[in-house]
Amino acid sequence: MTKEELINQIRIKQSFLCVGLDPDLSKIPPHLLDSEDPIFEFNKAIIDATHPYCVAYKPNTAFYECMGIAGWQALEKTINYIPKNCFVIADAKRGDIGNTSTYYAKTFFETLPCDAVTVAPYMGSDSVVPFLNFEGKWVILLALTSNEGSRDFQQLDTLNGRLFEEVLRKSQEWGTSENIMYVVGATRSAEIASVRKIAPNHFFLVPGVGAQGGSLDEVVQYGSNASCGLLVNSSRAILYASNGIDFADAAKKEALNLQAQMAYHIQRNNW
Amino acid sequence: MTKEELINQIRIKQSFLCVGLDPDLSKIPPHLLDSEDPIFEFNKAIIDATHPYCVAYKPNTAFYECMGIAGWQALEKTINYIPKNCFVIADAKRGDIGNTSTYYAKTFFETLPCDAVTVAPYMGSDSVVPFLNFEGKWVILLALTSNEGSRDFQQLDTLNGRLFEEVLRKSQEWGTSENIMYVVGATRSAEIASVRKIAPNHFFLVPGVGAQGGSLDEVVQYGSNASCGLLVNSSRAILYASNGIDFADAAKKEALNLQAQMAYHIQRNNW
Repeated sequence: MTKEELINQIRIKQSFLCVGLDPDLSKIPPHLLDSEDPIFEFNKAIIDATHPYCVAYKPNTAFYECMGIAGWQALEKTINYIPKNCFVIADAKRGDIGNTSTYYAKTFFETLPCDAVTVAPYMGSDSVVPFLNFEGKWVILLALTSNEGSRDFQQLDTLNGRLFEEVLRKSQEWGTSENIMYVVGATRSAEIASVRKIAPNHFFLVPGVGAQGGSLDEVVQYGSNASCGLLVNSSRAILYASNGIDFADAAKKEALNLQAQMAYHIQRNNW
Repeated sequence: MTKEELINQIRIKQSFLCVGLDPDLSKIPPHLLDSEDPIFEFNKAIIDATHPYCVAYKPNTAFYECMGIAGWQALEKTINYIPKNCFVIADAKRGDIGNTSTYYAKTFFETLPCDAVTVAPYMGSDSVVPFLNFEGKWVILLALTSNEGSRDFQQLDTLNGRLFEEVLRKSQEWGTSENIMYVVGATRSAEIASVRKIAPNHFFLVPGVGAQGGSLDEVVQYGSNASCGLLVNSSRAILYASNGIDFADAAKKEALNLQAQMAYHIQRNNW
């Protein structure tokens, strides 16, 4: 999906919501555990209930890999089930030396039909660029994450500013706002604003709204740009809104609630 | 496997060789392509031929993932086939926020019986510590990698020294030399020496000897410690020593050649 097509979907659906598909056997409704593939049944119901209200889905590979081959089967089925007008992000946080990164890119862009994959920047240019060689596909580079540990290295002062600022600047030499987005945590408004200054045109994937404590209004105020430029992720608040037989309805209500708030911002800002 | 057991294996086998299992369908001997699971057949023959001469195997997950479910099946069979006296490293370069990292740890320490997994440090403490909560298991943290892109961020000067030095220092607050090793590229002797100063007791996993241009003698001279402290990896030079029907014999010769050089250093240094 191109940037223009994504912006178009945001206008059509009046939403910049990304639903994180992080299914956890210990949290999904118990009545699903008897089905042949509980994870896929769960995801399928969540996708059916939420796809009118979101523009993207983001399965995190950890939740599938931990179940071995059955997990990868559920991941493959899930990704193939996502409607074609949704942007699919493999939240995999991969990254390796050149030749090896190409294999990771093939995994998510050819073997699986994802639009984007999250990539860790620590190994530098030749660990990221191989992902950018796939036409129409995206790297979502970790810049400033929402966890406590982001203080350890990302916020370290370097001779070129804080490390995450250098990641933002350097990586703009490798690709454009048509094939790179950034992960920018929602937990600190001042920092979202400083990221937006360095990367005015890029989309940000913003985790941390809701369960992790970030505010949608602040993310919009400090992180948006002239064409929205935001994908705001919610996982647990939607997936586990209920763990009864009404889980899909409860998920729908949560997604609709977030979509309504987003529609307000989209109209107000004329995106 | 504990540190003591690993050191013991190094003494018994007179080797600190790690064989990288990075099978590539375009490079393995063509006669294997007709078998039901060419990747596993290839790995099995390589393991049979090399296990007397190495103490560790390191499958890189990218080469398996790119083949989807068939790839994960080959990875699982391969890891289960590795003899129990060998240290098994999942070269996966994972890392995510706490809860999610626990799922990655389960993937490689419970679903698959690996001893260690490579982890990227960018997300900080709570992305690494969950891996350290598994008794008898290891994190091999990316410190200074051997690729060109390591200059982009790893070697950046921060207020606390270069970034990789800060990664080495900070991470020693999270675990010990009994459950953390470091990835240290073999391409620059001066830097290996500076890493060894900061982490005197830790094992280093050293890629980049051979195909990537590093020298074994220099790695030993600048990177070893009183009980060896090195796992030196070779992948392509062993795996693709021949792509004829003699590939396993050719791999054995390469592994034996490296083992003989390592035995010299082990005896000379009284490890």
